[in-house]
Amino acid sequence: MPGRKLRVAIAGLGRMGARHALHFYNLTPRAEVVAVTSPEPKELEWAARTLGDARRYSDYDELLREEKDLDAIVIASATIVHAEQAIKAINLGLHVLCEKPLSTSPEVSQTVLSAYQESKKKYPNQKVICGFSRRFDASYRDAYQKTRSGAIGQPAVIRSQTCDKLDPSGFFVEYAQFSGGIFVDCSIHDIDLALWFFGEDSVVKSVSAVGITAVSPELRKHNDRDNAVGIIEFYGGKIVQLFCSRMMAAGQDDCTEITGTKGKVSVNAQPTGTLVNIYEPSGVRREIPQDYYGRFREAFITEANEFTACCLDNTEPPLRLEGAVAAVKIGAALQESLITGKKIEFNESGERIGSAAVQGKAPAPLTARL
Amino acid sequence: MPGRKLRVAIAGLGRMGARHALHFYNLTPRAEVVAVTSPEPKELEWAARTLGDARRYSDYDELLREEKDLDAIVIASATIVHAEQAIKAINLGLHVLCEKPLSTSPEVSQTVLSAYQESKKKYPNQKVICGFSRRFDASYRDAYQKTRSGAIGQPAVIRSQTCDKLDPSGFFVEYAQFSGGIFVDCSIHDIDLALWFFGEDSVVKSVSAVGITAVSPELRKHNDRDNAVGIIEFYGGKIVQLFCSRMMAAGQDDCTEITGTKGKVSVNAQPTGTLVNIYEPSGVRREIPQDYYGRFREAFITEANEFTACCLDNTEPPLRLEGAVAAVKIGAALQESLITGKKIEFNESGERIGSAAVQGKAPAPLTARL
Amino acid sequence: MPGRKLRVAIAGLGRMGARHALHFYNLTPRAEVVAVTSPEPKELEWAARTLGDARRYSDYDELLREEKDLDAIVIASATIVHAEQAIKAINLGLHVLCEKPLSTSPEVSQTVLSAYQESKKKYPNQKVICGFSRRFDASYRDAYQKTRSGAIGQPAVIRSQTCDKLDPSGFFVEYAQFSGGIFVDCSIHDIDLALWFFGEDSVVKSVSAVGITAVSPELRKHNDRDNAVGIIEFYGGKIVQLFCSRMMAAGQDDCTEITGTKGKVSVNAQPTGTLVNIYEPSGVRREIPQDYYGRFREAFITEANEFTACCLDNTEPPLRLEGAVAAVKIGAALQESLITGKKIEFNESGERIGSAAVQGKAPAPLTARL
Amino acid sequence: MPGRKLRVAIAGLGRMGARHALHFYNLTPRAEVVAVTSPEPKELEWAARTLGDARRYSDYDELLREEKDLDAIVIASATIVHAEQAIKAINLGLHVLCEKPLSTSPEVSQTVLSAYQESKKKYPNQKVICGFSRRFDASYRDAYQKTRSGAIGQPAVIRSQTCDKLDPSGFFVEYAQFSGGIFVDCSIHDIDLALWFFGEDSVVKSVSAVGITAVSPELRKHNDRDNAVGIIEFYGGKIVQLFCSRMMAAGQDDCTEITGTKGKVSVNAQPTGTLVNIYEPSGVRREIPQDYYGRFREAFITEANEFTACCLDNTEPPLRLEGAVAAVKIGAALQESLITGKKIEFNESGERIGSAAVQGKAPAPLTARL
Repeated sequence: MPGRKLRVAIAGLGRMGARHALHFYNLTPRAEVVAVTSPEPKELEWAARTLGDARRYSDYDELLREEKDLDAIVIASATIVHAEQAIKAINLGLHVLCEKPLSTSPEVSQTVLSAYQESKKKYPNQKVICGFSRRFDASYRDAYQKTRSGAIGQPAVIRSQTCDKLDPSGFFVEYAQFSGGIFVDCSIHDIDLALWFFGEDSVVKSVSAVGITAVSPELRKHNDRDNAVGIIEFYGGKIVQLFCSRMMAAGQDDCTEITGTKGKVSVNAQPTGTLVNIYEPSGVRREIPQDYYGRFREAFITEANEFTACCLDNTEPPLRLEGAVAAVKIGAALQESLITGKKIEFNESGERIGSAAVQGKAPAPLTARL
Repeated sequence: MPGRKLRVAIAGLGRMGARHALHFYNLTPRAEVVAVTSPEPKELEWAARTLGDARRYSDYDELLREEKDLDAIVIASATIVHAEQAIKAINLGLHVLCEKPLSTSPEVSQTVLSAYQESKKKYPNQKVICGFSRRFDASYRDAYQKTRSGAIGQPAVIRSQTCDKLDPSGFFVEYAQFSGGIFVDCSIHDIDLALWFFGEDSVVKSVSAVGITAVSPELRKHNDRDNAVGIIEFYGGKIVQLFCSRMMAAGQDDCTEITGTKGKVSVNAQPTGTLVNIYEPSGVRREIPQDYYGRFREAFITEANEFTACCLDNTEPPLRLEGAVAAVKIGAALQESLITGKKIEFNESGERIGSAAVQGKAPAPLTARL
Repeated sequence: MPGRKLRVAIAGLGRMGARHALHFYNLTPRAEVVAVTSPEPKELEWAARTLGDARRYSDYDELLREEKDLDAIVIASATIVHAEQAIKAINLGLHVLCEKPLSTSPEVSQTVLSAYQESKKKYPNQKVICGFSRRFDASYRDAYQKTRSGAIGQPAVIRSQTCDKLDPSGFFVEYAQFSGGIFVDCSIHDIDLALWFFGEDSVVKSVSAVGITAVSPELRKHNDRDNAVGIIEFYGGKIVQLFCSRMMAAGQDDCTEITGTKGKVSVNAQPTGTLVNIYEPSGVRREIPQDYYGRFREAFITEANEFTACCLDNTEPPLRLEGAVAAVKIGAALQESLITGKKIEFNESGERIGSAAVQGKAPAPLTARL
Repeated sequence: MPGRKLRVAIAGLGRMGARHALHFYNLTPRAEVVAVTSPEPKELEWAARTLGDARRYSDYDELLREEKDLDAIVIASATIVHAEQAIKAINLGLHVLCEKPLSTSPEVSQTVLSAYQESKKKYPNQKVICGFSRRFDASYRDAYQKTRSGAIGQPAVIRSQTCDKLDPSGFFVEYAQFSGGIFVDCSIHDIDLALWFFGEDSVVKSVSAVGITAVSPELRKHNDRDNAVGIIEFYGGKIVQLFCSRMMAAGQDDCTEITGTKGKVSVNAQPTGTLVNIYEPSGVRREIPQDYYGRFREAFITEANEFTACCLDNTEPPLRLEGAVAAVKIGAALQESLITGKKIEFNESGERIGSAAVQGKAPAPLTARL
C-alpha cells in the first residue's frame, strides 16, 4: 500500500497511549508517528528510545502549535482532558481518534460532538471518532455481519457483560475518582454494542441499575460499586441486560449475546484465550486473557489501520461520534440509577421524565439522534 | 434396597403428570404407584395400558376417600388446582410432592404452607415439597457443592436464564392465561436457585423488570411478555439478574452463573445436549435439548427417588416449602413490575414500601423467613 | 409397562457385577433379579443386604441346576470364566448378557459363538449378546444415527481412544495378567465401534501397533504396555486409528471421531462431566468422569433395559455376537503386533498372510462374517 | 524500534509468497522489502501495485546479482526450486527463510543443510531457517511452555493431525505431482511438532502408515492418498500418531495432543474460529478457519518479525535447520510406508534396517542429530 502516509501525533503515553503509539508506529503501514506529547518525563524518555525520530512535547498545546503538517491526533491522555484536547484538535481541522469516553460527563461529551459538527462545515472531510475497540474486533464484527444478514431475525434482547479481573492492589478504588463510575468506565462498551446492534438511532425509554461492593467497600466514597447490573429499555421493544464487575477471578470475562426473533449470536460466552487446554488431576483447564488488552489487542491494531485508511481515503469510519455521546449519556444515567436506586425514564424525544428536577440539573436528551 | 415401598398416587396425568407417573412406576424402586387420578378419560386409558394395576379415579376427592393406605401423593394437575389438592392431602397427613408453582398467587401459595405448618403439629414426620427440578440436577448440585465448599468465596451476583424454544403454534399465548406470567412460570426456577445459593433466609430489597413482545404480541392481553429481564436485589449485598424468553431458536437454553468474591461457577453456559459435534460445510454444530424435560429428565427421576427416600426414612428433604412460597412472591412481584414498569421495594421485614396501596392489595411480606 | 417380568440371574458380584445387579434390580422395571452367584462370601453378604430375596449361590453350576424358572443370565464374573459360564447357560437355552470380552482368546471366544449358533437351532428365540456399553450410550447412538442418515457421507476414517485415569496403586499391573492386554481390554470398545460404524461385515486387511511403558515398566513382564497406538486397515478403503492409555491425568478420556466423505461426527472430543465450569485465578476448569462407569453409567442401564426387552419381546438385540468375536480377534492381533513389532496382514477371506506359522498357531480368520 | 532495517527480498509471489511479501512489507517494522522475483508477469504487476518501490525481477539469479545490499531472502517459490534457490543464497552469505519443505527429497534437503553448515564457517552469523509456521503460533507456544515447565510430566504420546478442507476442484490431485505426498506436504508440520516437543535429537525407531483414496482416486497415479494415518516410534519410549486428510468438510481441522506422564495439553481439539456461536433451529454452530492461513496468519506474521529480529540482532532463531531435514526424512519414510504397506525400521544411529536395498537407494540416516 504505497502512497502518502498519515502524519499522526499521539497525546498521552500512559498504558494505553503507549500501546496506541506502538500500533501506529509499527503496525500501521499507512501512518507515521511524527510527534508525541505527555506531561510525564519518563514517558517521553520511553518515546525517545522507542518511537524513532518522533518529536516529543511535554505540552499538548505546543505540539499543536509546532506541528504544522499534522494530519491526525490520537488522544489517549487522562480522561479528564479528553474533551478539551479533542476540541482543540477538532478546531484545527485535524482528524481525531479519541480514547473512550469523550468525557465522563454527558454535557461535556456533547460539547465535543458540537465542536465537530461545527468544524465539519469548514473541514467537510474531517474524521473524528471515539475508540470503541469492540467495533474493530473480529468476533464482534462476525456477530454483527451475521445479525445484519438476518441470521437471527430481528434483534430484541442483548445481554452483555464487561468483567475485569479482580485486582487486590486497590487500583480500582483510586481509579474510581476519575472513571465516571463502573457503568461509564466498563459498560460503556456494552452500551455502544447495543447501539450498534439495535441501530444508532435507538431511543432509550428507561434505565435502572443496582450494585454492590462485595470486595471494595471503599468504592462507596466515590459513589461507585464493584459489581452492578442494569437494564436499558429502548423504544420499539428492545432491551439490554448489563453486568459489570471488578471481581472476576479468572481474568477478563467479557461476553455478549444478541437474541433475535429467529436465533441468537453469542460472543465469547465461553471465555477463551489460546486454543490450549491443560488436562490435570483436577480436570481440564484453559487460561483466559487477563485484561482487556489481552482480549482486544488485535482490535486496537485494526482500529489504528482503519482510522488511518478512512482519513487518507476520505471514507466513512465504521462508527459515528454521535454514538459516543449517546453511550456516555446512557452510562451516566445508569450510574445515577445505581446510586439513587431510582429507575430513570425518558420520553420518545429523549427527554427525561419526572425526577430530573430533583437532580437539580437540566435533563440531557437521551438519544443518539442529535 | 428391599423393605416397605412408598405407596404413591399421582394426581394429574397430563404431559408432566404422565412423566411423574412413569418415573415413580418404573424408575423409583422404593415406590409403588397404587392409584392415579385425572379428569381426562384419555389419560386414564393411558394409565390402564401403562401403569399396571394402579387404581384409576376421575375424581381427586374420591381417590383420597378410597385409598386408605396411601402414603404420598404427587400433584401434577393443572396449576389452578395445585393448592386446593395439596391442602386436602396435607390435611390427611399424606406426604406431598407438588409440581411448581404451588399457585400463581403468593397468597394462595401461603395457604399451602400454612396448612403444612399446622398439619406438622399432628404429623411431625410429614414431608411436603414443591418440585423445583434443578435442585435435583447433577450439574446444579455440583455447582452448589463447589460454592458451599468455598470455591468461589462469597456468592454475590447470580445471572440466571430460562429460555424456552420458540413455539410458533401459539401454545404459549393460551398458556399465559393460567401461567401466572413468564416470571412466575419460567424464572421461578432461577429465583429458587437464587434462594438456594444465597441462602433461603435472604430478604428481598427490591425487584424491577422490563419486557417485550417480540414474537407474540397477543400475550399482552394476558398481561404477559415473551421476553423479559429482571433484577432482584437482596439485603446484604446480593443481586440477581434474570432473563426469561419464549423465543430461543435452538432449544432450551437455561444457564446460570454464580459470581463470588473469589471465583465463579457456571452451569450450562454453553448449552449442551449429547457429546456429539457434527462437522459440516457450514461449520461445527451441536444440538441441544429441545425442552426442559430434555434438559432435566434425570433430575426428575432423582426427585422421585429422593422424595420417596425422605418419606420412607424420615429424613430432611433437600428443599423446604418455605422457599417455594418465597419464590412465588418474588416471581409475582417481578411480574407486577414487568407490567407496571415500576420498581418495587421492600423493607428488611419483607414488607412492601410505598406503592402497595396503589395496587389495592395487602402487601405480602417478601421473605422466605416465615 | 405391565406384564411378565424377565427372571434374571447375575453371575459375579464384583465391581461391575454389583452394578449390573443393581441396574437389573432397581432400574429395569421389566426384569426381576431372582438369583445371584459369586465365589466371594462378602459379595453374597452384600447381595443379602441389597437385593431383596434374590437367591444366593456360591457355585455357578448349582445356580443353573436349581433355578429352573430362569429366563436369562448376566455374566459379570472374572473374564477367565466368561466363556465357560456363557456356554453352559447357552446350552440350557438361557438368554445371556456377557460382559466384554467373551474371552481374551479369539479361539475361545469363537467357541461361545459356535455354541450359540448351535443352540439357536433348538432355541430360535434365544438372545446372547456381549455387553459393549457404548452401543447403548446416547451420544454414540446420536453419532450413529447421524452417520446412518448420511450426514457425513461415507465413513472412511475412525479415530478412537480409550484412556483410563492414571492409577498409581499398581492395579493395572496386576490386572494385566488376565486382561488380555491393553488392546483387548481397552481398545476392544473402539474396535467394536469401528465394526458398528463401518459395518459388521468389514474385513480386516492389516493391523499394526506400537506401545510404550511410560509409567509402569512392570507391565512388560505380562507382555503389556501402558500406552499404545494402533492402526486397523479394512478392505474397501476404511481405516481406524487407535490410542489406548492407562495414564490420563484428568480422568476417563474416551473419544471417537468418524470422518466421512462429506463430514465428520465427534463424540466427546472435549471430555465433559457435568455442565459446570469453575472460574478460578488459574483459569476456567471443568471436571471430567473419573472412570468408565462415570462416563457410561446411563448406557449400562439402557443395556439392562434393552436386553430385557429383546428377550421378552423376541426382538433383535442392537448388536450381534459375531461382532464380539471379531473384536477379540482384532484386539488380539493388535496386541500381538504391539509385542512383536510386526504388521499382521490378512487376505480377503480373513486368513492371515505370511507370518502365522512363526507364531505357531493356526490363524484365526479375521472377519466378522463367520 | 528504530535502527537499521533488514533488507529483504521475496522469491516467489504466488499464494504464500504474496502473503510473505505483505507481512514483511506492512507488518514487520524492522524489515524493508527491497526486491522481489517471480517468473509470472502477473505477480510482478501485483508487486508493482502493492509493494511500493521494491525492485522487481523475473529471474532469481539476476536478483541475486543485482541486489548487492541484500541482507536476507524469503524463498516462497515452487517447492521444486526451494533447495536450489536456498543454496545459492546461502552461498552468498544471505540470511534465508525458506518455506517448507526444503525439498520433497530427503537427500536434496540434506544438501541445503550441508551448504549452510559449510557457509557458516565463512559467515558465522548467518541464519537459515525453514518456515514451520506452528513454531510461531501462540497456542502451540503456550502448549510448549507448559510442557517445558513440567505441567504434563514427561511427554510420551503425541497425536497430531493436519486436515485440509475438502476441495472438489481437483486442485489436490494436480498438486500431488509435486507435493511429495500427503505426509511430506501436510504431516510434516506434525512431524516437526513431534521433534519440537520430544526434543530435536529424538531418533526414529520405526514408521508405518496406511492410507486410502476416499474422494480422489486419481491421487493413486501420483502415489498419493487423500486420507492417511501413520505411526512414528522414537527410541526412548515415545510415539506419535498422525492423521492427514484432504477431506474435512468444515474447514482446516488441525489439532495436536501431547500426553505426558502427569497430564496432557491439547491444541485446537475443538477447532475454533472467531469467538462467535450461532444459535439456530438446527442447533448451536461455530465456523472454523477454511484453510491453514485462516488458522495460522498471526503465526506467519510473528515468523516474519522474529526472523527479522534474529538476523538483525544475531540471536538464535527459534528452530534449527537440522529439524527441517529430519522432518522431510521422516515424512518421506512415512510416504514410502504408505505406498509399500511396509513398516520401516531404523537402528539407533538412524540407519535403516532391512528392506533398504529393496528400495534401491542408499538409506538416509533418520535422525536430526546430523
